[in-house]
Amino acid sequence: MSSQFGQLFRISTFGESHGVGVGVVVDGCPSRMRLDLDFIQSELDRRRPGQSKLVTQRKEGDRVEVLSGLSEDGLTLGTPIALLVRNEDARWQDYSEMKEKYRPSHADFATDEKYGIRAWQGGGRSSARETIGRVAAGAIAKQVLRENFDVEVLAWVEQIQELVASVDPLTVTLDAIEATPVRCPDPALAEQMIERIEAVRKDGDSVGGVIGAVARGVPAGWGEPVFDKLEADLAKALLSLPACKGFESGSGFQGILQRGSEHNDPYRAENGVVHTTQNNSGGIQGGISNGMPILVRTAFKPTATVMRTQDTVTTERENTTLQGRGRHDACVLPRAVVMVEAMIALVLVDHALRQRAARLDR
Amino acid sequence: MSSQFGQLFRISTFGESHGVGVGVVVDGCPSRMRLDLDFIQSELDRRRPGQSKLVTQRKEGDRVEVLSGLSEDGLTLGTPIALLVRNEDARWQDYSEMKEKYRPSHADFATDEKYGIRAWQGGGRSSARETIGRVAAGAIAKQVLRENFDVEVLAWVEQIQELVASVDPLTVTLDAIEATPVRCPDPALAEQMIERIEAVRKDGDSVGGVIGAVARGVPAGWGEPVFDKLEADLAKALLSLPACKGFESGSGFQGILQRGSEHNDPYRAENGVVHTTQNNSGGIQGGISNGMPILVRTAFKPTATVMRTQDTVTTERENTTLQGRGRHDACVLPRAVVMVEAMIALVLVDHALRQRAARLDR
Amino acid sequence: MSSQFGQLFRISTFGESHGVGVGVVVDGCPSRMRLDLDFIQSELDRRRPGQSKLVTQRKEGDRVEVLSGLSEDGLTLGTPIALLVRNEDARWQDYSEMKEKYRPSHADFATDEKYGIRAWQGGGRSSARETIGRVAAGAIAKQVLRENFDVEVLAWVEQIQELVASVDPLTVTLDAIEATPVRCPDPALAEQMIERIEAVRKDGDSVGGVIGAVARGVPAGWGEPVFDKLEADLAKALLSLPACKGFESGSGFQGILQRGSEHNDPYRAENGVVHTTQNNSGGIQGGISNGMPILVRTAFKPTATVMRTQDTVTTERENTTLQGRGRHDACVLPRAVVMVEAMIALVLVDHALRQRAARLDR
Amino acid sequence: MSSQFGQLFRISTFGESHGVGVGVVVDGCPSRMRLDLDFIQSELDRRRPGQSKLVTQRKEGDRVEVLSGLSEDGLTLGTPIALLVRNEDARWQDYSEMKEKYRPSHADFATDEKYGIRAWQGGGRSSARETIGRVAAGAIAKQVLRENFDVEVLAWVEQIQELVASVDPLTVTLDAIEATPVRCPDPALAEQMIERIEAVRKDGDSVGGVIGAVARGVPAGWGEPVFDKLEADLAKALLSLPACKGFESGSGFQGILQRGSEHNDPYRAENGVVHTTQNNSGGIQGGISNGMPILVRTAFKPTATVMRTQDTVTTERENTTLQGRGRHDACVLPRAVVMVEAMIALVLVDHALRQRAARLDR
Repeated sequence: MSSQFGQLFRISTFGESHGVGVGVVVDGCPSRMRLDLDFIQSELDRRRPGQSKLVTQRKEGDRVEVLSGLSEDGLTLGTPIALLVRNEDARWQDYSEMKEKYRPSHADFATDEKYGIRAWQGGGRSSARETIGRVAAGAIAKQVLRENFDVEVLAWVEQIQELVASVDPLTVTLDAIEATPVRCPDPALAEQMIERIEAVRKDGDSVGGVIGAVARGVPAGWGEPVFDKLEADLAKALLSLPACKGFESGSGFQGILQRGSEHNDPYRAENGVVHTTQNNSGGIQGGISNGMPILVRTAFKPTATVMRTQDTVTTERENTTLQGRGRHDACVLPRAVVMVEAMIALVLVDHALRQRAARLDR
Repeated sequence: MSSQFGQLFRISTFGESHGVGVGVVVDGCPSRMRLDLDFIQSELDRRRPGQSKLVTQRKEGDRVEVLSGLSEDGLTLGTPIALLVRNEDARWQDYSEMKEKYRPSHADFATDEKYGIRAWQGGGRSSARETIGRVAAGAIAKQVLRENFDVEVLAWVEQIQELVASVDPLTVTLDAIEATPVRCPDPALAEQMIERIEAVRKDGDSVGGVIGAVARGVPAGWGEPVFDKLEADLAKALLSLPACKGFESGSGFQGILQRGSEHNDPYRAENGVVHTTQNNSGGIQGGISNGMPILVRTAFKPTATVMRTQDTVTTERENTTLQGRGRHDACVLPRAVVMVEAMIALVLVDHALRQRAARLDR
Repeated sequence: MSSQFGQLFRISTFGESHGVGVGVVVDGCPSRMRLDLDFIQSELDRRRPGQSKLVTQRKEGDRVEVLSGLSEDGLTLGTPIALLVRNEDARWQDYSEMKEKYRPSHADFATDEKYGIRAWQGGGRSSARETIGRVAAGAIAKQVLRENFDVEVLAWVEQIQELVASVDPLTVTLDAIEATPVRCPDPALAEQMIERIEAVRKDGDSVGGVIGAVARGVPAGWGEPVFDKLEADLAKALLSLPACKGFESGSGFQGILQRGSEHNDPYRAENGVVHTTQNNSGGIQGGISNGMPILVRTAFKPTATVMRTQDTVTTERENTTLQGRGRHDACVLPRAVVMVEAMIALVLVDHALRQRAARLDR
Repeated sequence: MSSQFGQLFRISTFGESHGVGVGVVVDGCPSRMRLDLDFIQSELDRRRPGQSKLVTQRKEGDRVEVLSGLSEDGLTLGTPIALLVRNEDARWQDYSEMKEKYRPSHADFATDEKYGIRAWQGGGRSSARETIGRVAAGAIAKQVLRENFDVEVLAWVEQIQELVASVDPLTVTLDAIEATPVRCPDPALAEQMIERIEAVRKDGDSVGGVIGAVARGVPAGWGEPVFDKLEADLAKALLSLPACKGFESGSGFQGILQRGSEHNDPYRAENGVVHTTQNNSGGIQGGISNGMPILVRTAFKPTATVMRTQDTVTTERENTTLQGRGRHDACVLPRAVVMVEAMIALVLVDHALRQRAARLDR
């Protein structure tokens, strides 16, 4: 059950980078929705490497094919929506050395230990191509959220190494995020980030950073009070992304510097509408949304693929070195922004559906 | 499905602070294990408030009663183990004001929005007493891990506000952790932390901090490569604890300052045994354990209950203030240490069982 | 995961006949319902042996205790409802021979093969007492169905050996079912059944039969089209009852004698309301309810406990004989009627909640 | 979650008869198995209509395409195996009348009531083509069972209307089953069945019957003692097949004519190996396999598609008639044999994997 996510809006992803293709089956999408295929494709385009010189230059089409789930008119039937994106343009000669050597801080070694076999060409399920299924399903989740609940999910690059942008999650727009290839809506910082990434890329190295995200419009009442807390499900969703090593909700690790009397979010009511005057809770209290914007931040380590010589071992467990070759993503964060949005949308739509079943008196 | 956790070692917790009691049903515990009831009780004692003046003075017995799952000889039958801890000594007059007012940064408001009702006495499922079931189940999980897999899970208080302890996760011991009431194994820092907590408590306020944790002895191969990554399941488990707002695995948020060539963990082999020469991955690569110690850190916000006057609203949505009364935990972290260990143990034992089903050739 | 049932209205049963007690945790019950504790108790009383001389004479109180899930006013909180019934009056000396010998057609041998241990006193989880948790949870499910959906579930004894009653599922009432201790609403046949059971009981033997059931008032649209077909979930629910060996939906095994043109249920509309003029489908088409009464029948084998000498083997795998002793249920069907109703109600309420999440446009 | 089945060997089917294709994602298949693609294709060929004049004459290729899950050498990677079979040769003009009229005893009406939309061309998910994914996944399950557990699953047509074959489940072979197009291993009865089906087909009508099945080689210990009893999961699996309306395990509905003393299966031991001298239990006691052959029987109603004029209603809820046209399956049972085997294999392999996690001491 390693490749399924969600309870009521449930996705099953499949595919490796070396086979026929990658994709997803979305089970539980509400019926009678006009599926916005252009939007799914545009989200896949945002995820795709080679959009700018900042990221891998490999050219991929990543055209989505709908295998099932739609009526002749393009409406969802309530049945599983299967989406396929075929693999193209594989050049496994780039990878041949990997057959006998484990790449440091990749999944190669652990995968071999677990399964006794691995798809050494391109990393198998640990390839970034696995996220294609997530992004496609996330696009559907975004459409459900937008059309049925008026909820918007946005993510952006907030930090690259020590370069920290200033972003207001209450007002940031998709246009501002998409304005630069680094997807940082702070123009001055964006320029510095681009320079940094470019320099590191030329150096054959890589950098990580922080992605910030907001969900605006989530009503109070989504999430469950114990194990399936909204922030617990968000944390799982985001930590399941490749290279993600940290998660914060609301004040996160910074909140620990405050005292409780400062940190608590006072309630105020205006015309019967309750809000908090600050949002250290990040829109979630006791695991349940309170109607304020949902705020999360995630840390992505520097990409493990670098064009350097590194110490490693062979599959025969002898010490050796491995020389990175070919192209590499010096910084995965601009693309990861789309994956972060997708995972947040998948969590929210699942809880939106669960909430409909939680109370029979409305 | 808000109160269940795990796939094969699956727990269902129940109970509020105001009812008969709290407890847990553990489904999937392997058969023929001599259940260590004294250990379960001692873990509950570690969790219990009132162990020192650092924490709530309320006296609770929290005696565990085994309702099912054992043979007459005390061996597990492979059937559900149900454990009950009765509530005692409730003084709801302390809480009566809460019936009409929402406590800031508690679950009260969000719970009412979700369910249209809440157990205002003591916080219902959001009460810290809910964690009794987790800790009891976690004690069973620890026993399974210890006896069958030689795995040890330890957690400790690493930071209170800006006070940061120095702890070596490779060598830290339970004795060192238990040596001080603050459960910080750095004696000098422990003393400062105790002073800080005591001062804040007298001030009617509260503080948060960071809990560090390690799992030693986990073999390579636990965890799943996509959604059920080991760190994703750990993140969910820990973010599901009350007051937890952040999670890091390995280098976490700090790792983003490094470049990939520094951050990558080189492999070395000695006599056929593979290890990494540093552990930025925190023992997990591609979601799967690699045989190195598993390292996580979690942020806990300052407890929401403070003895101050705070702005809030009534259930009728009118602005008001709420005065904190009675006793309070100025710092929940020493007790949360036990909860963190329990949740990590629950995740690990679940993946240990799942791994047995993943390969038929060993 | 052997002891959980349901997706959104999810129950976890626990307990053996020899331990402290048996019970259930109900997770997912809608909030703000005034839980009818008297009804739960009355359902447990219907399930209890010793209600008449037809069944086991053992006297059991089976008083239900609510451990969690209710407000001070007795309203459901939306949190897990834990129910406990304590064991009483165990006389395990009756069972001592079972420690070394497997009872034919009981779960003893298979349980030992699976777990390497068994609760030989009373049969462990295979004891009929396990069904107490189901019946208690089923009573809650019945209340949800009655109050929110106006659905009624009834079951009755339809056949004992070759004695077949004539029952109209459209008009049968609970009063008619409860009118005789054998729970057969056909008075003439009931009398013959009672005589048969009594004769067999005196003979130290046992008989089986068929239980019929109906769910009236189920709207069209419950159930899922592929694996979670309504009749598939009903089949699983009923085959999970002890001694159940067969299941039919609608025309069942008899329908195979007809041709399609006879068997098909023609639709007719009256004032915009669609019905079928016959109900071979048993109210379910393509796995989804069609608004007609849901009709199922289940076969229960003769109880395995008989007061006869039978061939068996010892736990050391030597041939031997076992002499049945003590009291026995000559016919479990009158009590199983309550279990059948409970399981049907649990399936229906789960699908009622799932259906609320299936469509967002109503 | 309507289209997923299994806990550890989990399948997700997708596809309608009118879209691009149908298929399945198999999650949890053990790694390092050389997937037998020829066998998968041969099972799909057995399922395919048009194999003989007994069944639908439509010509379908149903070539299976593997989208993911295999290494370059054709070994399973432990990752999701996605299989796709493209739709061909659709002639929806045959179905145009169905757009406005509900076919009696099909899923049309109930589907519309549930989802507010239906794929009227070919029946959507209720089309027999949905079973392609099941049969393909079932072929993989059979391979796992054969290679790892030496378990064989066979099914056959046992009864058509009142024509009852004599089949010994202990000795029946695949060759004997495949010897006739009706898949009845009793040659004399097979001929009568063929004549009957042919006559009914010319008459534009349809017939149902009973499929018998056996699983030989299942060791003692598979299955769970409470809700996930082996026979409960088998019942759900089989009742989830289109047109299935009944299920029996072991003595089933016939067992109720016996007394307990006759019905009980005595144990005997020979050289330390335990068996029963009869098999009314059908190889399952208390929900757990006991090492004897597993025996089940399922009832399939006559196919709903008939070439007759039938009363029905329009989508506008007006009374009308519907004239069946085109080709039809006069008897679906010979093809359903393959589906029955697939579903049994899926249940067994899932419990085989679950059993590996149930005990740590072997």
